[in-house]
Amino acid sequence: MQGQSQQQAYDRGITIFSPDGRLYQVEYAREAVKRGTASIGIRTEDGVVLAVDKRIRSPLMERTSVEKIHKADDHIGIASAGHVADARQLIDFARRQAQVNTLRYDEPIGVETLTKAVTDHIQQYTQVGGARPFGVALIIGGIKDGEPRLYETDPSGTPYEWQALAVGADRGDIEDYLEENYRDDLEVDEGVGLALKALASVSEDGLTPEGIGLATVSVGDEGFKQLSDEEIETHLEAHDLLGDEEDEE
Amino acid sequence: MQGQSQQQAYDRGITIFSPDGRLYQVEYAREAVKRGTASIGIRTEDGVVLAVDKRIRSPLMERTSVEKIHKADDHIGIASAGHVADARQLIDFARRQAQVNTLRYDEPIGVETLTKAVTDHIQQYTQVGGARPFGVALIIGGIKDGEPRLYETDPSGTPYEWQALAVGADRGDIEDYLEENYRDDLEVDEGVGLALKALASVSEDGLTPEGIGLATVSVGDEGFKQLSDEEIETHLEAHDLLGDEEDEE
Amino acid sequence: MQGQSQQQAYDRGITIFSPDGRLYQVEYAREAVKRGTASIGIRTEDGVVLAVDKRIRSPLMERTSVEKIHKADDHIGIASAGHVADARQLIDFARRQAQVNTLRYDEPIGVETLTKAVTDHIQQYTQVGGARPFGVALIIGGIKDGEPRLYETDPSGTPYEWQALAVGADRGDIEDYLEENYRDDLEVDEGVGLALKALASVSEDGLTPEGIGLATVSVGDEGFKQLSDEEIETHLEAHDLLGDEEDEE
Amino acid sequence: MQGQSQQQAYDRGITIFSPDGRLYQVEYAREAVKRGTASIGIRTEDGVVLAVDKRIRSPLMERTSVEKIHKADDHIGIASAGHVADARQLIDFARRQAQVNTLRYDEPIGVETLTKAVTDHIQQYTQVGGARPFGVALIIGGIKDGEPRLYETDPSGTPYEWQALAVGADRGDIEDYLEENYRDDLEVDEGVGLALKALASVSEDGLTPEGIGLATVSVGDEGFKQLSDEEIETHLEAHDLLGDEEDEE
Amino acid sequence: MQGQSQQQAYDRGITIFSPDGRLYQVEYAREAVKRGTASIGIRTEDGVVLAVDKRIRSPLMERTSVEKIHKADDHIGIASAGHVADARQLIDFARRQAQVNTLRYDEPIGVETLTKAVTDHIQQYTQVGGARPFGVALIIGGIKDGEPRLYETDPSGTPYEWQALAVGADRGDIEDYLEENYRDDLEVDEGVGLALKALASVSEDGLTPEGIGLATVSVGDEGFKQLSDEEIETHLEAHDLLGDEEDEE
Amino acid sequence: MQGQSQQQAYDRGITIFSPDGRLYQVEYAREAVKRGTASIGIRTEDGVVLAVDKRIRSPLMERTSVEKIHKADDHIGIASAGHVADARQLIDFARRQAQVNTLRYDEPIGVETLTKAVTDHIQQYTQVGGARPFGVALIIGGIKDGEPRLYETDPSGTPYEWQALAVGADRGDIEDYLEENYRDDLEVDEGVGLALKALASVSEDGLTPEGIGLATVSVGDEGFKQLSDEEIETHLEAHDLLGDEEDEE
Amino acid sequence: MQGQSQQQAYDRGITIFSPDGRLYQVEYAREAVKRGTASIGIRTEDGVVLAVDKRIRSPLMERTSVEKIHKADDHIGIASAGHVADARQLIDFARRQAQVNTLRYDEPIGVETLTKAVTDHIQQYTQVGGARPFGVALIIGGIKDGEPRLYETDPSGTPYEWQALAVGADRGDIEDYLEENYRDDLEVDEGVGLALKALASVSEDGLTPEGIGLATVSVGDEGFKQLSDEEIETHLEAHDLLGDEEDEE
Repeated sequence: MQGQSQQQAYDRGITIFSPDGRLYQVEYAREAVKRGTASIGIRTEDGVVLAVDKRIRSPLMERTSVEKIHKADDHIGIASAGHVADARQLIDFARRQAQVNTLRYDEPIGVETLTKAVTDHIQQYTQVGGARPFGVALIIGGIKDGEPRLYETDPSGTPYEWQALAVGADRGDIEDYLEENYRDDLEVDEGVGLALKALASVSEDGLTPEGIGLATVSVGDEGFKQLSDEEIETHLEAHDLLGDEEDEE
Repeated sequence: MQGQSQQQAYDRGITIFSPDGRLYQVEYAREAVKRGTASIGIRTEDGVVLAVDKRIRSPLMERTSVEKIHKADDHIGIASAGHVADARQLIDFARRQAQVNTLRYDEPIGVETLTKAVTDHIQQYTQVGGARPFGVALIIGGIKDGEPRLYETDPSGTPYEWQALAVGADRGDIEDYLEENYRDDLEVDEGVGLALKALASVSEDGLTPEGIGLATVSVGDEGFKQLSDEEIETHLEAHDLLGDEEDEE
Repeated sequence: MQGQSQQQAYDRGITIFSPDGRLYQVEYAREAVKRGTASIGIRTEDGVVLAVDKRIRSPLMERTSVEKIHKADDHIGIASAGHVADARQLIDFARRQAQVNTLRYDEPIGVETLTKAVTDHIQQYTQVGGARPFGVALIIGGIKDGEPRLYETDPSGTPYEWQALAVGADRGDIEDYLEENYRDDLEVDEGVGLALKALASVSEDGLTPEGIGLATVSVGDEGFKQLSDEEIETHLEAHDLLGDEEDEE
Repeated sequence: MQGQSQQQAYDRGITIFSPDGRLYQVEYAREAVKRGTASIGIRTEDGVVLAVDKRIRSPLMERTSVEKIHKADDHIGIASAGHVADARQLIDFARRQAQVNTLRYDEPIGVETLTKAVTDHIQQYTQVGGARPFGVALIIGGIKDGEPRLYETDPSGTPYEWQALAVGADRGDIEDYLEENYRDDLEVDEGVGLALKALASVSEDGLTPEGIGLATVSVGDEGFKQLSDEEIETHLEAHDLLGDEEDEE
Repeated sequence: MQGQSQQQAYDRGITIFSPDGRLYQVEYAREAVKRGTASIGIRTEDGVVLAVDKRIRSPLMERTSVEKIHKADDHIGIASAGHVADARQLIDFARRQAQVNTLRYDEPIGVETLTKAVTDHIQQYTQVGGARPFGVALIIGGIKDGEPRLYETDPSGTPYEWQALAVGADRGDIEDYLEENYRDDLEVDEGVGLALKALASVSEDGLTPEGIGLATVSVGDEGFKQLSDEEIETHLEAHDLLGDEEDEE
Repeated sequence: MQGQSQQQAYDRGITIFSPDGRLYQVEYAREAVKRGTASIGIRTEDGVVLAVDKRIRSPLMERTSVEKIHKADDHIGIASAGHVADARQLIDFARRQAQVNTLRYDEPIGVETLTKAVTDHIQQYTQVGGARPFGVALIIGGIKDGEPRLYETDPSGTPYEWQALAVGADRGDIEDYLEENYRDDLEVDEGVGLALKALASVSEDGLTPEGIGLATVSVGDEGFKQLSDEEIETHLEAHDLLGDEEDEE
Repeated sequence: MQGQSQQQAYDRGITIFSPDGRLYQVEYAREAVKRGTASIGIRTEDGVVLAVDKRIRSPLMERTSVEKIHKADDHIGIASAGHVADARQLIDFARRQAQVNTLRYDEPIGVETLTKAVTDHIQQYTQVGGARPFGVALIIGGIKDGEPRLYETDPSGTPYEWQALAVGADRGDIEDYLEENYRDDLEVDEGVGLALKALASVSEDGLTPEGIGLATVSVGDEGFKQLSDEEIETHLEAHDLLGDEEDEE
């Protein structure tokens, strides 16, 4: 009980350290990320794959309005997990950064450059008073100089580069699956399969095209592309992952 | 009791996360929405229907002053539930956005564009200190490129797209009714009927024209139209929903 | 006792929601309104009537300095109840709005337009930090396009339109009286009588011209007019409402 | 005890309402007024009289430095009670208002106009955060269009007009005396006598010229005039109010 | 104990009233004044005398660095008691006021004018948030139109005019001595003697030239003049007040 | 227990002193530094060596994204330990300082000059309210006028110059090792060996090229140079420090 | 215990008075000064001497980076004790003041003028909210008009002039030694000896050149001069104060 009341003392002060050097508000923002459904990113030899769990709470809700995959620029996609309204703010920030870069330097923004602009923005909300941290994690994937790149931003404002990762609910289990099954010589289509199988590994009821979002950015055309329900269904069938969707809707 | 005192600690800090990653002020603002009478939105093949419960506390109050349906632009209507004064702020914000869009691009604002401008505005009040969240939910319905669109904004600043939804009191029961009875091949008139029946499903005393507000936005003329008492009464009679209004007034 | 200490937690934060979605400071401001003596507004076929209880605490105080009825524009009057100094701020705001409207559009401001400008102003004080809500309710009555209109503003910033209403002390009892006795085919003089009888219904000692303020805005000349003591006395006598004023002064 | 701890909760928040709709800081500021010695204002047929108790804590203090009567303009005087340093701020504010009015409109400021400018200024300190209310009450007396006018400003920012009033210590007893003895056909000299007798009614030791301040504003020349010790002594003798002043100094 | 915890509630809010209308921070600032050694001011027929106790805590400290008497202008001196660093701020403020006055009006600033500029400045720190009151009292003495004038400023921002006064430690005892021995027909040299005797009346060990500061402003040349150790010693000898200074250093 | 609750009182106030003159938030920020993996700096006769422990939490994370060594200018490198996002802010600040210096004075910035610009920036966050201290320590190493220089910045904003130092986890043990084994006549290659051996002294599993970052700034070309995995492996083999890396990945 | 909890109430409010008129944050800042190693200043007939204890925590730390003696201008040196990062801020402030003075008046700044500019700057941090006081004391020594001057600034912002003083750890004991042994006819070299002996009086292990900093400002050339290790060693030997330095390093 003592520990608990002590902890409260640090929660309330938004931007201060606890005696053991932690920032509780940032850690709680990470909990907000865990409350969101999972998003996965996979880097392959010839592109990046973004896959998200987009289950909806009601059959009357339009699935397209559950926006967890976003196009940041022609060659960069972003998947999010956590507080949806916060994600929109960061996506808007990222898009403006990409546009400004194109206008100013007449070339597309680098994936790492964009990621660090976003994390520096996030960090400010963890140090300066008057606002709370962002309760969202982003997976930023794209092509830079013909190379696929895959990054994560977390609520502390730290950028990480990954071969494959998950954010949101079940992160630990999905990353275990990825660590066991990831190979760095995958092609994009194989990456899509790995992502779906990773999602299925934590799903009890199997997957449905409607409950999933998928996007790829390929080296060939450097283009961000969202997959249609039909394409997703084809992939699910190919990997024998199709659940009993009829029952659910 | 311990849980309670712990919860208080997070209530008072307006814009901070709780240890489990929740924003209590946003959740309390959702309670303010539930305190308001119900509003319903239904998307049909050829338009959207907005229906609201506008019971008044006194027979001397002018029913027209209970403003729960608003015209945002010629082709977009908004129904609200929750804190009335907050709703007015958001409606004014939405109208200004619509006007600016028309002036700047010489074309009417899209329904989704307007919705997201409103939710981004709402989100700011949940992250930056010095103000409380908005205690109101909006249903934004209209026509874009000949297609009916129906959106919800909630106090967290998240936009959702729906086929049919309810906000405010009895949301759960009304949505159950809608899920059972909604078909996506409805026409506007059928949508009006469904909305009235959904409202009646949670009303003990039957409905009266005076206690209801109704508006439609149709694809044909893309026009927002509020229904008169006579029109509402006709609909109520057609569906055998007319209550004993004489007794109440 | 627990409920009490919990309630305190929300009182102190000026602009935050309680767990059940209420804004305590706004509700307390409504209590400030109830602490003020009653004001009544009545809409008749050909005008509006404003009547106020202006009892004074000392016979040496000038009754005219108890300002509860104000002229906002030639065609609009305002009656207030609650915190007097706050009322003056809102009256000044309303007058400036009316002047600006006349200058800008070269026509008198509408009653509804004026009311909503005032309520939007009030709402800001309930959402943005650094100030308390206004502890006052206004009855705004006037003529627009030849039609009498009667509105209320409350501390939350919500506008209501009424046929007849009361604010301040004894609101409930006076409104009961009005509901029983109001007819929408009253003429202004009958409205004055109804207002005085409603005031008398909650007065133990009968009424005196000195303890009452009366104003009318009539359709004919669209003019705001304060009644003199003699005129009030005539009305009181006509309705047999004259109390033992000699004793009091 | 419970009531006490509850009360504390509202004291600390400068500008918020208590559950019963009161503003404690304003009420405490009224207590600061009561801590000051009494000031009296009397309106007569041909002028206004200001009289103040200006007892001093030490015989070595210059009585003239106990400034409780101030000249605001040629035709307006102000008496104060309460926190002296706060009074000086309001007096300075009033003088600037009077000067600006003269410059702008080329005529002396009205007594009521000046009073309301002061009360509106006071009200701001009760609603907007970052400062405390003024702990002072003013009696503003002067001539407007040949008529004597007498006003009070209190810490809430409410203006009152009076025939005769007292502020500060013993207000209740002095006002009882005034109610019994005031007549509205008094002349200025009689008003001076009434004021002195009212002061004497709450004084145990009788009055001395040194312990009193007196000023008049007369209709004839519309001039503010402070009375000398000799003139005060003459008045005291005329009313048999002269105390044993030798003993005190 | 209850009173104590209640008192704490008001201490922490810098600029708010207690239920009995007091400003605790101002009263605590007065305690800061009492923690300083005494300063005395005496007005004589032909000038003012400022005398201060400037005991130092170490024989290695330069006595001249204990600045308790300051020249504000050629014709005005200021003695202080209380928080030394705060005193310096007010002295600087006073000097700037004096300079500005001379530049603007081409004549030396009046003693009363200067005092009130200082007290108005002090008052702001007691009403507006974000800073604490000044923990210092000033004695301002000088010549205006050939007349000696002597004022006090206290932490509330109230100006007082005196014939003779003390601030700081032992104020009560010194003022008792002054009340018994002051005559308003003193000449400056006699005033010096009275000041020294008053200081000696509360000193256990007798006085030394090093432990005392003395300054005069005389009508003749209207000049501020600090006395040298030799001059102080002459005065001490003349009044048989010389202590055993050798022992102390 | 008492000490604990007392300590809490000072934690929450960001920038205030405790009764014993400590700044707890700064001390807690030092704890944040200790939570980071170790970084080492060594000054040799002909250059400086920076070595960091860059273990990663997942085999799928790109090691290059664990940025603990940064190039601040051609001739200056910086190693960090602690809160990663905070480090990025300071590195950006340092780079801008270096650029501005070059532009303004047309010569590279001095190592000490750069360090003090950074520490002055850090200090502001410990004294002025509204933000928390930086939870990071930097080792700044470079060449100035042909001489190697090595500095540390800590969360209080104090600059230190070192011959050899460690920051982050195991600082004490590593510094013990350095104190025993450092000689000031080392050459850069020997410095690299010492740094690796110091890191190994606190590692249980031996070192792997992937778990280490290494950079040097040499006097000869004054150039900052990051070592490749192959170069690191060569050094590890030369000192027999190579762990069983296969097992870990 | 009661006293303790009461004390906490005042600690947390940065700039407010306690009931007995004290500023706890300023007193705690003085504790921060005591946590620093000692610094000594001595004024002699022909110059000033600054001596500091600059023990370092590690043999690998560069002693020159322990900056406790600073050159403020050609003719003024400053020694500090307490919070190092705060000292740097004040030193920078002092240097800018000196430069501005030289530019503006074309003559070197006076020692007293500089000291008071610094103390006025310090005072602001004790009265205005939003920042904490400076946790450092300075000894400012220099030559003005051919005369040596020696000042102290403390965390309250009070300036003191001294013949000889100590700040930081062991202040009391060192000042006792200085009071017994100081003579005002010392020459600079004798002052150096006195300073070293005073330092030695509180040192258990004897002194080493590396553990001491020494600077002088002499009347002859008015020049600030830091002594080299060799010069310090010569002085130590001359006074037989040399400790067993070999053992320590």
